[in-house]
Amino acid sequence: MTDHAEPKTVPATMRALELRSYDGADSLALVERPVPRPGAGEVLVRVAATPINPSDLMFVRGLYGQKKRLPVVPGFEASGEVIASGSGVMARYLSGKRVACAAPFDGDGTWAEFMVTPAALCIPLGRRTELEGAASMIVNPFTAWALLERARHLRAKAVVQTAAASALGRMIVRLAAARRVAVVNVVRRREQVELLKREGAEHVLDSTAADFDEHLLELSARLGATAAFDAVAGELTGRILRAMPAGSRAVVYGALSQEGCLLDPRSLIFEGKAVEGFWLSEWLRAKNVLGKFLVARRVEVLLRSELKTEVRARLPLEAAAEGLRSYEREMTGGKVLLVPGLLRPTP
Amino acid sequence: MTDHAEPKTVPATMRALELRSYDGADSLALVERPVPRPGAGEVLVRVAATPINPSDLMFVRGLYGQKKRLPVVPGFEASGEVIASGSGVMARYLSGKRVACAAPFDGDGTWAEFMVTPAALCIPLGRRTELEGAASMIVNPFTAWALLERARHLRAKAVVQTAAASALGRMIVRLAAARRVAVVNVVRRREQVELLKREGAEHVLDSTAADFDEHLLELSARLGATAAFDAVAGELTGRILRAMPAGSRAVVYGALSQEGCLLDPRSLIFEGKAVEGFWLSEWLRAKNVLGKFLVARRVEVLLRSELKTEVRARLPLEAAAEGLRSYEREMTGGKVLLVPGLLRPTP
Repeated sequence: MTDHAEPKTVPATMRALELRSYDGADSLALVERPVPRPGAGEVLVRVAATPINPSDLMFVRGLYGQKKRLPVVPGFEASGEVIASGSGVMARYLSGKRVACAAPFDGDGTWAEFMVTPAALCIPLGRRTELEGAASMIVNPFTAWALLERARHLRAKAVVQTAAASALGRMIVRLAAARRVAVVNVVRRREQVELLKREGAEHVLDSTAADFDEHLLELSARLGATAAFDAVAGELTGRILRAMPAGSRAVVYGALSQEGCLLDPRSLIFEGKAVEGFWLSEWLRAKNVLGKFLVARRVEVLLRSELKTEVRARLPLEAAAEGLRSYEREMTGGKVLLVPGLLRPTP
Repeated sequence: MTDHAEPKTVPATMRALELRSYDGADSLALVERPVPRPGAGEVLVRVAATPINPSDLMFVRGLYGQKKRLPVVPGFEASGEVIASGSGVMARYLSGKRVACAAPFDGDGTWAEFMVTPAALCIPLGRRTELEGAASMIVNPFTAWALLERARHLRAKAVVQTAAASALGRMIVRLAAARRVAVVNVVRRREQVELLKREGAEHVLDSTAADFDEHLLELSARLGATAAFDAVAGELTGRILRAMPAGSRAVVYGALSQEGCLLDPRSLIFEGKAVEGFWLSEWLRAKNVLGKFLVARRVEVLLRSELKTEVRARLPLEAAAEGLRSYEREMTGGKVLLVPGLLRPTP
């Protein structure tokens, strides 16, 4: 269809968001930069859309697993079109294709008009997949997939999840329902109980309710919920673990409370319970190419159903700092997407 | 040698310590009780000596993994002579033999002149093994053995341990040295550093020192210490885990701080670290008879060397409450043994 390199369509400079210190939204600046060039095995993507995720909130504050050298372009995932390729079979194959892509482990990320990333971190999209939906194809859908895979590996008949009203939590609700895995959903606000029930979640508990621990104990025993996905940390990790059956395992994948996980040692010692973590980057790294490809094909199909991401705002790069603050205040009502071409449509 | 039952030597009543509420040493009473009778598969042991262990301190306060119905005789392990047997091959085989024994999971324990327990929880002793040393043969030596077995299973080249100056900690130092496994010993008082170094421990860190975290980071990386045995819990669990290499695992087997384990979620999420528990009762339950027998034979030989227990006091049952309080105040200087026959020698 298209040649493997189309240098004519690539401008010399682009607009990009730069993080200048690890102090959050205030440290972001919109700058003019040279468009990067793809090296061996890499591709240049013209970014169509790129979301603000909870991991970005951690990253811009220096709380993420990895601190990159500053200044740096933040952003972990995007969708767009491959408009230039370096050498290598896979990079050339992607040339001209629409892709979902993850940022490289080192260096600049996705919050820019253009980005360079290894071809291995790109997923070519089928014709029926829209770029807006594909912008959030990796972080949340792959995490939902991987966590349920972990629960199956742990032989859990049912799972408990915290932060259940988040975009990811709601994906897990739908994906688990499709697989007939029962989920005990834990939220921290009463109105989120109604929200999840309207979306079809059967078991929803408010951790601020007086009878929370008692209900969780009864439900998790009855359903056989021996795996928990925890994005909150703090004392909630220990509370859910204490209520769950002997031998249960909590998988911590976020720390929205910004507090340490507080565990009752008796849960560990006398009840054979354990705590581990989950990081998508590590999961992707450990999975072989074929495994990733197969998951990607299944995930792409489900982007229209179980793994659909709700979008509440589409912002130009100029409004990124405001978008970040708004997302931090209220993470429940859908994703905030950055759309670099919004005020400057590409020809 | 001796017949399988010698009812003539069994008196009708005995003295025993009874726990009457879960309020610690003050709730212990020395009472006169009928001598219990062994049922099928059980033996009656005349107790020679029985130690006060950290797990007893937790038990008498209701903090142990299991609360027994009150009143109950506490005590988890003892040594003595089998003076009557119920039916069953193993029970009869033990008749007349000197044994180390663990208390049954339910019902009365070892702090009495006589006790009944399943034959499966008794280890017949060789002639060279003394009853005093064998009184502490199970809880600490088996735990030391099992923890190092776990570390080997986790492929740790070296281990970190907290409460390293405890009787169990010092066994681990010696057993690990014999196996050429390096140990980073963590203590909470400066004088314990000297104590352990005098005993030949190479790496000893005081967690109250200002440069503790830095030294632990450097040492555990250099030695490849990716497993930790933690008997303290509280914030120390998270501190040691944070300092250890990526992929490390903390095995919590005690909670001397009486606080919850506080973990940095980033250790779990981004560094692939995990926390689990260890309970000897569960380990013994899960291990098959042959496996237990083989460990017992190795442990018995090592009672005279690596797994030797230092005794600081031998008390009659009358002084148990005082012994408990003294042990709680200062757990470093050797075991406190209860010797039921001390003031009333058996004929």
